[in-house]
Amino acid sequence: MDKDVLIQVQHRIRPYIHKTPVLTSELINEIVGTRVYFKCENLQKMGAFKMRGAANAILNLSDDERQKGVLTHSSGNFAQALSLAAHKIGVKAFIVMPKNAPQVKKDAVMGYKGNIIESESTPMAREQMAAKVGRDTGATFIHPSNDDDVIYGQGTAAMELLDEQPQLDYIFTPVGGGGLIAGTALAAKYFSLQCKVIGGEPANADDAFRSMQSGKIEFNERTNTIADGLRTHLGDRNFPIIMENVERIVRVEEDEIVDAMKLIWERMKIVIEPSSAVAFAALLKNKEEFKNKDIGIIISGGNVDVSNLPF
Amino acid sequence: MDKDVLIQVQHRIRPYIHKTPVLTSELINEIVGTRVYFKCENLQKMGAFKMRGAANAILNLSDDERQKGVLTHSSGNFAQALSLAAHKIGVKAFIVMPKNAPQVKKDAVMGYKGNIIESESTPMAREQMAAKVGRDTGATFIHPSNDDDVIYGQGTAAMELLDEQPQLDYIFTPVGGGGLIAGTALAAKYFSLQCKVIGGEPANADDAFRSMQSGKIEFNERTNTIADGLRTHLGDRNFPIIMENVERIVRVEEDEIVDAMKLIWERMKIVIEPSSAVAFAALLKNKEEFKNKDIGIIISGGNVDVSNLPF
Repeated sequence: MDKDVLIQVQHRIRPYIHKTPVLTSELINEIVGTRVYFKCENLQKMGAFKMRGAANAILNLSDDERQKGVLTHSSGNFAQALSLAAHKIGVKAFIVMPKNAPQVKKDAVMGYKGNIIESESTPMAREQMAAKVGRDTGATFIHPSNDDDVIYGQGTAAMELLDEQPQLDYIFTPVGGGGLIAGTALAAKYFSLQCKVIGGEPANADDAFRSMQSGKIEFNERTNTIADGLRTHLGDRNFPIIMENVERIVRVEEDEIVDAMKLIWERMKIVIEPSSAVAFAALLKNKEEFKNKDIGIIISGGNVDVSNLPF
Repeated sequence: MDKDVLIQVQHRIRPYIHKTPVLTSELINEIVGTRVYFKCENLQKMGAFKMRGAANAILNLSDDERQKGVLTHSSGNFAQALSLAAHKIGVKAFIVMPKNAPQVKKDAVMGYKGNIIESESTPMAREQMAAKVGRDTGATFIHPSNDDDVIYGQGTAAMELLDEQPQLDYIFTPVGGGGLIAGTALAAKYFSLQCKVIGGEPANADDAFRSMQSGKIEFNERTNTIADGLRTHLGDRNFPIIMENVERIVRVEEDEIVDAMKLIWERMKIVIEPSSAVAFAALLKNKEEFKNKDIGIIISGGNVDVSNLPF
């Protein structure tokens, strides 16, 4: 039963994560015309909610699996999360990254003691290299978003939020690979009577919006969005959860993402990455509809080059 | 008795302030070689600790005084704090600001419903204008830092920090007008057996350092520091408290302030103003001395133009 699993997951990962603060701003509330509660996963360990799912997936391995380590292909936050969670739990992490990944991302993974294996940059080459590393090491592959343990782990952010603010009418999350929104939708289903979940997605990478329309997993042909964490597509584990439990997906334009990001930096005084601003941008765009509601926003991460901002 | 007064103040201002979170980062702890607890007053209402002192000073007025309003001269965070606190308590706030103050600062005060009265920009002209407004309106003048009620109010940030982390060996604060460090020193004196208070100050505006050396209030001839909140000098109410209760003042260079600021933005994922980085810069500069200690840092504020950063 999912509800019991979520409670177990929350207990299991507790020693490895921060219980992040929920912040509010009267000025933001005035601008939006509603009460907004920001769940600050940018203040999570390694700077993103991904730490939750990574920790849970590793903790769920058998002793034998733990000895052989874990493996993923990612150049983003999940690479860092899996490296750090593995290091804390005492497990080796193998991270397949494209050769041409920015040095700052490689440095971050190495800082968390992940072992980088370089590949060519095509998705095919990355998957083949991951398969090879899996065969060579016996390490367990953990997908960044399309994995039940990862989905449950990500759901714990919304559990904490609903525990503090049980009256929430809606929770908005960004939608990338689908792990966060699927976990959030399960948390809302089991730990609230009324709370609905809405996704924010860049119009320039609107695969999840189209997937919910068509009823099957759609892909992006182009992904020219500043929200670089949201360029991926849904998977067969998270899509059915999303299809059944998510109210809808709202698409936002690039300038709306940047405006929302700047507003949060200025008013909330927190550093968030562009992907994190997408959920708030979705609320801002439809603020008339949500007047006087209680809204949770999951701020997904804060890993951004502060010397190179879009405003 | 100061201890009882501080407890009363904490209760009095509670409905008007945020209890701000205390954040930690393992990476920062590794870099510094100690355990650092950041008390995030940048996440306070209006973005700075000044809200605490302003609220307390207004709440301490008689009914008659409240009817006539409050008055200060400031173009910084205290102008905003007094405006917002007055608005919330239902009192008029008159803010004397130099004609040439940046529009963004005037907008902020007006956003919090403060009434701006413009003056010429010399300190003398500002004081004369404040005196005139006081005569015309009967409003009570409240100094941004050299006022007992303000000092007690600012001390509540350290009270909250020590309540959460009673084992702290040191608390570092920035030193500007002296209200925050004096209040912090009182809180440490009465609510900890062991905690000492250290100030961080820009070498380019080191009046407090020199004041503690000479035993009398010294002034700055030049104040060319990026930490624009720290260009002011101590006053006769806070200096004796500082002289008696502050361990010492550490001076830091401009590049050390910017480096510390960037490190906090990148690792803590919070927006802080340059003045806030000065306390942490003082710790970084002397990290060998504080190895393995428990250190609190008061992050004083987050009001900064995010489109115009020094890195």
